[in-house]
Amino acid sequence: MSTESMATSPVTYPQKQLPSHPLEPLTASEITGAAAIIRSAWPQNTNLQFKVITLEEPPKNEVLPYLEAEHSGRPRPSLSRKVFLNYYIRNTNKFHEAIVNLSSGQIERNVRLGANVHANGDGEEILIIEKTALEDEAVKAEIAKLQLPEGTVIICDPWIYGSDGINDDDRMYQCFLYLRDPANPTEEDSNHYALPLAISPVVCTETMSVIRVDLLPTGADNTIKPTQPYQIRPPNEYIPEAQDLRTDLKPLNVAQPQGASFTVTHEGQSTLLDWQKWHFRVGFNQREGMVLYDVQYEGRSLFYRISLSDMNIPYADPRHPYHKKAAFDLGDAGAGIMANNLKLGCDCLGSIYYLDAVLGSDTGDILPMDNVVCIHEQDAGIGWKHTNYRTGRAAVVRSRELVLQSIITVSNYEYIMAFIFNQAGELTYEVRATGILSTQPIDDGVEVPFGTIVHPGVLAVHHQHIFSLRVDPLIEGQHNRVVYDEAYPMPRSDFNPHGTGYYVEETVVEQSGGYDLDFDRNRLFKIQNADVRNPINGKPVAYKIMAPPFQKILADRESYHYKRAEFADHNIYVTKYRDDELYAGGKYTNQSRGGTGVRSWADRKDNVKDEDIVVFVQFGINHVPRVEDFPVMPCEILKVMMKPVNFFDKNPALDVPPSEQHFNKSNLLSQSAQHQQPLMAATVTGNGDISCCSTKSKL
Amino acid sequence: MSTESMATSPVTYPQKQLPSHPLEPLTASEITGAAAIIRSAWPQNTNLQFKVITLEEPPKNEVLPYLEAEHSGRPRPSLSRKVFLNYYIRNTNKFHEAIVNLSSGQIERNVRLGANVHANGDGEEILIIEKTALEDEAVKAEIAKLQLPEGTVIICDPWIYGSDGINDDDRMYQCFLYLRDPANPTEEDSNHYALPLAISPVVCTETMSVIRVDLLPTGADNTIKPTQPYQIRPPNEYIPEAQDLRTDLKPLNVAQPQGASFTVTHEGQSTLLDWQKWHFRVGFNQREGMVLYDVQYEGRSLFYRISLSDMNIPYADPRHPYHKKAAFDLGDAGAGIMANNLKLGCDCLGSIYYLDAVLGSDTGDILPMDNVVCIHEQDAGIGWKHTNYRTGRAAVVRSRELVLQSIITVSNYEYIMAFIFNQAGELTYEVRATGILSTQPIDDGVEVPFGTIVHPGVLAVHHQHIFSLRVDPLIEGQHNRVVYDEAYPMPRSDFNPHGTGYYVEETVVEQSGGYDLDFDRNRLFKIQNADVRNPINGKPVAYKIMAPPFQKILADRESYHYKRAEFADHNIYVTKYRDDELYAGGKYTNQSRGGTGVRSWADRKDNVKDEDIVVFVQFGINHVPRVEDFPVMPCEILKVMMKPVNFFDKNPALDVPPSEQHFNKSNLLSQSAQHQQPLMAATVTGNGDISCCSTKSKL
Repeated sequence: MSTESMATSPVTYPQKQLPSHPLEPLTASEITGAAAIIRSAWPQNTNLQFKVITLEEPPKNEVLPYLEAEHSGRPRPSLSRKVFLNYYIRNTNKFHEAIVNLSSGQIERNVRLGANVHANGDGEEILIIEKTALEDEAVKAEIAKLQLPEGTVIICDPWIYGSDGINDDDRMYQCFLYLRDPANPTEEDSNHYALPLAISPVVCTETMSVIRVDLLPTGADNTIKPTQPYQIRPPNEYIPEAQDLRTDLKPLNVAQPQGASFTVTHEGQSTLLDWQKWHFRVGFNQREGMVLYDVQYEGRSLFYRISLSDMNIPYADPRHPYHKKAAFDLGDAGAGIMANNLKLGCDCLGSIYYLDAVLGSDTGDILPMDNVVCIHEQDAGIGWKHTNYRTGRAAVVRSRELVLQSIITVSNYEYIMAFIFNQAGELTYEVRATGILSTQPIDDGVEVPFGTIVHPGVLAVHHQHIFSLRVDPLIEGQHNRVVYDEAYPMPRSDFNPHGTGYYVEETVVEQSGGYDLDFDRNRLFKIQNADVRNPINGKPVAYKIMAPPFQKILADRESYHYKRAEFADHNIYVTKYRDDELYAGGKYTNQSRGGTGVRSWADRKDNVKDEDIVVFVQFGINHVPRVEDFPVMPCEILKVMMKPVNFFDKNPALDVPPSEQHFNKSNLLSQSAQHQQPLMAATVTGNGDISCCSTKSKL
Repeated sequence: MSTESMATSPVTYPQKQLPSHPLEPLTASEITGAAAIIRSAWPQNTNLQFKVITLEEPPKNEVLPYLEAEHSGRPRPSLSRKVFLNYYIRNTNKFHEAIVNLSSGQIERNVRLGANVHANGDGEEILIIEKTALEDEAVKAEIAKLQLPEGTVIICDPWIYGSDGINDDDRMYQCFLYLRDPANPTEEDSNHYALPLAISPVVCTETMSVIRVDLLPTGADNTIKPTQPYQIRPPNEYIPEAQDLRTDLKPLNVAQPQGASFTVTHEGQSTLLDWQKWHFRVGFNQREGMVLYDVQYEGRSLFYRISLSDMNIPYADPRHPYHKKAAFDLGDAGAGIMANNLKLGCDCLGSIYYLDAVLGSDTGDILPMDNVVCIHEQDAGIGWKHTNYRTGRAAVVRSRELVLQSIITVSNYEYIMAFIFNQAGELTYEVRATGILSTQPIDDGVEVPFGTIVHPGVLAVHHQHIFSLRVDPLIEGQHNRVVYDEAYPMPRSDFNPHGTGYYVEETVVEQSGGYDLDFDRNRLFKIQNADVRNPINGKPVAYKIMAPPFQKILADRESYHYKRAEFADHNIYVTKYRDDELYAGGKYTNQSRGGTGVRSWADRKDNVKDEDIVVFVQFGINHVPRVEDFPVMPCEILKVMMKPVNFFDKNPALDVPPSEQHFNKSNLLSQSAQHQQPLMAATVTGNGDISCCSTKSKL
């Protein structure tokens, strides 16, 4: 990275009236203010294209004392408010990284980044690229060979170019072209993915021009055929007007007549949530979308920071240009900027609280993002139950959950992401993959082992979705350790004469690195605080990580895919905390080379035992498409659960009030039971309700 | 097994007026009628103790033509109605198996079973054993040594004895003793598991007497200490009166103002369910609880029969008598007979339909079982979504599920079992484990590697919960095959020069046997019909099995645990169908020896390719207890999902109506969005509702 010093601005940013929380996302005026300060460092009329304007979180060793003061109500220290920016001189490759200190008004850093370091995409740029590709003469000439019907609309999906080391130093986009259904060219929401073309323009963003037009292989091998007249295929629409909709679904409404149980406190741009002994702060930024900070249960600290760190989706087709398809949807695009505006009653059911966000635009102005997070409660079935068979008395509580949900659209795909809290001290991160498969054209009668035909002429190539959840723990304190438990059979012996015994053994993770699940040993990872002991059994308090297994990235170790998706080769990464190590795939993922992500940090072989550590939890699927995934796929659901282990002195949900009819107001559709089964009894209370739980049953 | 012929009864059973469906569970009069016929085969006043009176399902090759006639509305063949019975001559070890043909009134089989074949427990017997143990003089003498306070109540939990090959030919119970909190002796629902005793009577059921009193090891090794004065520990109560209940949980109600979307049709003792293109029959019997028969989607057959086949819970403590603990909760007890009477508004939320059942009692009378299955819909979040980023128009539907739920109490533990259907043709079997850990006493200051201390003086030993779901497929026809897909990286080559390619390869399971998951290869099992092809891509129609991995049974191969829990060593078993091979652990599990379950059937090495096959799907957890699991554990949730693969020609939920506010009636808690984000738009319809989906958005 070359460093060019820019003249620091003498402009002083007006003192904020109310000091921000150090973890609060930037306000509108902070965004525009920081952009203004950077602009002032350049000659007037320099056209800057802002790519990122986001909070530069203070060092953890400054934030922790602030949090302690916050929790205990003491005066809070004053921390500098800083902004991180990425920007280009528009229409050049001069890409910069800057840090502005708003408290002092100074520019602390403003450097031009070097070769092979490129910015993420942005919405404005995407639209310009689409236009550029479709208006290019060479592209139009190629399209003309298709001999499409008059009025056919071509759709251009610009894709992050990817990396292969072959003339890929410039920042480019690989555009994939599709048709809107020629028989319905005015339907703007026609599913163009059903009609892919074999013409793929490449746009260079520095010049914003098409530098070549690739033709795509449509057979089983590498053969590229010259562009032929297009064989029109049937459409495959997902919009409801194109369906014969079901008519027999009755409404299901969720009502909370006394309101919801959570409390939302706005502090500037961040939000405090209180619910069922949970207390945490929610932020939202361009890259990660939702971030949880300072998560506590009953005043006991659990997590400093939790967020999705990145995801990578490498594709299985080895042929040019598909070999480059491996998107980092956070680093290349941004889970915040791609977030849907959630619609009441469509995306979220029940009593809903929305959070808005404000992000920066490419001109350094405000981009208001409304309803990007919805917050609501939901019922999750029975939380726990026991019936004493002798008396017939049941004790039962329902499980209530708090959900914070956000949805991102990344071109064809959607991801629905949610943090889910329950009353048993458990926190789940859930991802649902939906939206539309990435498609490419295939000739009739051809089959390939690296994809599935999902529509006539349409191949959906196999791909992996690999997610990385960054968990920065603060389990009762800053120094934690990761351990894993494994279960082994005891050998036969006098102690184990029948061969039935088994035991659990704990191993401490001493060194930073990548670690894997092993179900044959029931390997289970836990984050512990070795200095805080459970009062019942003396074990260190801990949270266990329950992550589903997944096939690690299949691209080989010499590939760019492997080198860049540094998190995709292990279930767990443990690193020693350093500020600014947030993004498991590296800070700059677009056409990256690798070497700047979690694998590289872990390779430092730091001590991670009883240290300030960070845990990256990977999970995902190898998506082998099926016809049922087209035209839009039913949600595929993945969950990572974090549950307390010897953290509490009993079931933390024991004090949830019993589940009772007068509270739940269920409705009986069938006839009441005719008989009373002798071993179970119910007492009818004075108000006529059947009470199963609160009073003693009499046989 | 010895065979004693009994005189067949000349009694003719009166002709039923309405013919039953062959898969319909027994009616009340069929139960009592069959018992009467068996009684009539014995001298009058012979005291018979009935253990099982259940439907003997007709051979599949007779049922299938019946089902075809049923589906097509043609006249149905007449099938014999048969009853399977197990019974003892009470207070003897003379255990019998019988089959009564109700259609002819004849006894077709009535044999005495031989050594080491014992009946399941039953509720009446359990109460007698409790009483027998507590009133035994030797037991009382041992208890006296505890020097308990006056009025202390002892509780006795009889446990299935288990097998170890050591003087275990007789049918016995190992009873574990506990105290009701001595400070609260009139509280009948005191959690006695918090106060375990080291005295364990063994009761022989033939004589119904205590044959010995075991003392339990309470240290880290095999040492048995003489019974000492009892050191009173604090209680650990789960009943709500003992808690400081939360006061801040607001109600959450689920309402279906137009009723539920499912239709229930009662046909005698069985029930037909229709919901969102699903159509299936539900039965309920003593051993398996809920059974699904003849499952179809949009008239296409999927499954002949699905049920939980058994579960096994082996424990890790190798010391006597704990080395014998390995309960088969279905074979030893019964998921039907143990089913809870579900209470409106407590166990089930929303608009609820209950199913009742009728089982047989130990005297051959009726045991009415009310509200053993609850049926309801639930919302499961977003089903699928896509937003066209160019227009901002979102198409989104919610996922509605149909749930059939039953809960069983097996002494200390509860299992909540549910079949869950959704609109994408997916069927999930979910098990939640809750209830109370099995506990045993431990001395202070002792730790063991095979259990966790969850309360002072209380050890909860590690144990495995291993479930077996029996899936008898009928995927578009009777002859199916199991295949598995695996994903492999391509080697580097001219075709794969960048090392990014991978492919999926299918392997056919040719022979019956046990098979395992392998996430390193992304191994995925599917049940296919090779003769029915997907119209889009020509692939065989299939359903895939998504089962979570689990550590296989740790008891070694020479152990009784391993020999008996024949299903517990593989993720998948595939067998060639034979009538009467329903129970993966064998028909008689109590103190069994093994050799009669799925491993043995699979060892026949039958051809299973394009045959009438049965698939057993195993899943489970190695439960390493934590303090949070006591006194009652928060539900641990396990799911097996079966999803269509190339069975449909598109997403089967594409025709679900769009998710809209006027249907869902969500409630806004936060202020409305102040700004309209440029890329997303909403149109306000005439009635003032925000519509996100049904009309086109305009930018």
